[in-house]
Amino acid sequence: MCVTCGCGEPDIADETINLEQDILEENQRYALQNKKIFQQSRTTAFNLVASPGAGKTSLLMATGKALVKPCSVIVGDQATEYDANLLKSNGLEALQILTNKVCHLDAHMVGHALEKTVLKPDSFLFIENVGNLICPALFDLGEHFRVVLLSVTEGEDKPLKYPYIFGSADLVLLTKIDLLPHLQFNLKYCIDNIKAVNPKANIIQLSSQSKQGLQGWIDWLEKAA
Amino acid sequence: MCVTCGCGEPDIADETINLEQDILEENQRYALQNKKIFQQSRTTAFNLVASPGAGKTSLLMATGKALVKPCSVIVGDQATEYDANLLKSNGLEALQILTNKVCHLDAHMVGHALEKTVLKPDSFLFIENVGNLICPALFDLGEHFRVVLLSVTEGEDKPLKYPYIFGSADLVLLTKIDLLPHLQFNLKYCIDNIKAVNPKANIIQLSSQSKQGLQGWIDWLEKAA
Repeated sequence: MCVTCGCGEPDIADETINLEQDILEENQRYALQNKKIFQQSRTTAFNLVASPGAGKTSLLMATGKALVKPCSVIVGDQATEYDANLLKSNGLEALQILTNKVCHLDAHMVGHALEKTVLKPDSFLFIENVGNLICPALFDLGEHFRVVLLSVTEGEDKPLKYPYIFGSADLVLLTKIDLLPHLQFNLKYCIDNIKAVNPKANIIQLSSQSKQGLQGWIDWLEKAA
Repeated sequence: MCVTCGCGEPDIADETINLEQDILEENQRYALQNKKIFQQSRTTAFNLVASPGAGKTSLLMATGKALVKPCSVIVGDQATEYDANLLKSNGLEALQILTNKVCHLDAHMVGHALEKTVLKPDSFLFIENVGNLICPALFDLGEHFRVVLLSVTEGEDKPLKYPYIFGSADLVLLTKIDLLPHLQFNLKYCIDNIKAVNPKANIIQLSSQSKQGLQGWIDWLEKAA
């Protein structure tokens, strides 16, 4: 029944949410399987979530070059092997998941990708989620840490408008800070907004282009292992 | 059953898609009701879809000032009345829909918002969808035209990576072109990518900040009525 107004009509959004409960319980079962796989190889797994074009792939290319530990990437997109190919051509082990009409990665998809991925002992696994600030918030992939990227070109209000994803972040990366001189962007207001939905989140500002702030991210990764 | 590999396990993504079929049929019934409402007041309705922070609200503020016809806005977000308030403080009639955990507007939500919106005769209605390049592609709101915004800060590959939303666009707006001098962005490659998934789409480049290209959008709107 319609939750918006009690009009007696069936409510589409309400149905969507009810259906999601079953799906999420099933997802959790697969997430636990993934966790066991990570444990076996002592792999630390990071789930990278952001809007389309916030700079996830560019960050991973810069990260691969700066890290000492071995790392691999599982990357999700609706279509194209573009990101996996780009990462591979930059020397990273990368596997593409194509989700077609699905708007997020789920733990079952990642489980299948893990069957085809060699996790080296004491390594990092980066799971680059589909570009979307909403649906990936609901799906635990079995990761140890959730990293949410927010490009400064997107505006300061995004943490308040997408509170579930920012609220669930272990780390928020403010990306593309090399563009700050060309934007009307209030950094303090943005950080206040992140803290309003997630008082405990770590926040790092960086640019994969200029490399400014990149060392802070590498240090955080090495501490996280 | 798992569509990825035929492993015999239930597939989460497959279930999501099956469930969506019923939801979409129901949505279509509400979309037809909305279409009738638009017809009665001779309102032309535009569904604006984009990534978070691509500049939908800024564009509508600039559009409201430049248009001769009366117009109103229905705006969807997971949380905050921020956009509706911003539009109202710029003299536009605006109504906020809060979707909470839902990742898109559906025709039922818009139908309820229409009950509270006065559509002037021969007017424009802009429906600013939730920031998301995936899920809104599936939901017809009863609109006459679908307009997809792509900020040049997001990269040239997005039309190929999100083919359903770009493939369904009547018009693609390349936004924030004032930032082009500061980006490594190949405009021709981006336009080729839009055409690859949608050979018939109109494409307009603009900046709500510098007003460059804005008149092209206003002219397109006036022809669309």
